[in-house]
Amino acid sequence: MAGTQYREAVVDLLGALAYGELTAFERLADDAAFAPTIADKAALAAMAVSEYQHFARLRDRLVELGASPEVAMEPFVQALEAFHERTAPADWLEGLVKAYVGDGIAEDFYREVSAYLDDSTRELVLAVLEDTGHSAFAVERVRAAIEEDPRLAGRLALWGRRLVGEALSQAQRVAAERDALSSLLVGGTERPGADLAEVGRMFARLTDNHILRMAVMGLSA
Amino acid sequence: MAGTQYREAVVDLLGALAYGELTAFERLADDAAFAPTIADKAALAAMAVSEYQHFARLRDRLVELGASPEVAMEPFVQALEAFHERTAPADWLEGLVKAYVGDGIAEDFYREVSAYLDDSTRELVLAVLEDTGHSAFAVERVRAAIEEDPRLAGRLALWGRRLVGEALSQAQRVAAERDALSSLLVGGTERPGADLAEVGRMFARLTDNHILRMAVMGLSA
Repeated sequence: MAGTQYREAVVDLLGALAYGELTAFERLADDAAFAPTIADKAALAAMAVSEYQHFARLRDRLVELGASPEVAMEPFVQALEAFHERTAPADWLEGLVKAYVGDGIAEDFYREVSAYLDDSTRELVLAVLEDTGHSAFAVERVRAAIEEDPRLAGRLALWGRRLVGEALSQAQRVAAERDALSSLLVGGTERPGADLAEVGRMFARLTDNHILRMAVMGLSA
Repeated sequence: MAGTQYREAVVDLLGALAYGELTAFERLADDAAFAPTIADKAALAAMAVSEYQHFARLRDRLVELGASPEVAMEPFVQALEAFHERTAPADWLEGLVKAYVGDGIAEDFYREVSAYLDDSTRELVLAVLEDTGHSAFAVERVRAAIEEDPRLAGRLALWGRRLVGEALSQAQRVAAERDALSSLLVGGTERPGADLAEVGRMFARLTDNHILRMAVMGLSA
């Protein structure tokens, strides 16, 4: 892996992703407490376990790279905790929408970034982004709930908008603070990245996909 | 596996154990939120994952036995949820003491009961009772905290007593309601169990082990 700045950027990226998986584990396990049935509780727990296994792979890779996983994750703790604090779901359905919308945006973002990575890092990132089956589960449950009580759609659509707003605001904070990480995307002194037009198109794709996901759940974005 | 009552008792036992593991998963994942460092958070998450894997093995066995895991777990939901509600830890150390003391008593109890099981069920029960490394972790952290601030010992000792009291009260409730399960221990119409003196000795062993565990953490029972 060439270049100090590139290595630093990869450690940042894997650290952010690792802490993201660890908080996803916690969030899903928390949501399990809201589950209306034991089977739903077990399904959420299984998804939480998958997130943990993703976390463990990222942590192992950080160790392979000679980085301390804790040090690598540390810069992203505040932003991720702030996001989760500001978007604590009030019930089972809000938790499902959050997991689906939040994971979706994070997945799209990391998939876009993976284009600028070396093969071995890209492979790992794509592997840990693999859907744990949560999406289908969340979509199915949210759609069924809205069919049963259409008034839910308004509240959940608002909730979706709030989630995206908070996610973008925390992401901007991280981008402003972590130069190495941002340079992965927009290029740095050592290597070219996407030009500004490409970054713009990337955000358009992220937004389009978000609107699509909301529609799949039966919600307006 | 001979006898309807025995099969019913085994399904009860595996159901109780399975829901116990599922709530242990949730409890450890919740405790991870209190963790003072990212490494501690990851360690708790790993233990939660082990509990989930135990749960999954028990659920699979229930399916093999032709039982619905959800139906088998249902009778124990209320008692286990009531126990956890009444003993929600206020901080990281209370969570560690609860996990160590609670898992210890549960483990001792199921180990005693396993003497009255057929080989294949006993093997499974002993396998899922295997320590997930949580004990050493909890003991080390609690001892270190008390060494640093000896005043903690009084509060945590009281907390240990409350945990045992609540655990016994919920266990009695379950025993009173689930005849098949109780008959495993004390015998039923189809097969002999322990006599009353043996049940008394079993409770003495459970109590002795609890006192020992408290002492290991540096707490009086």
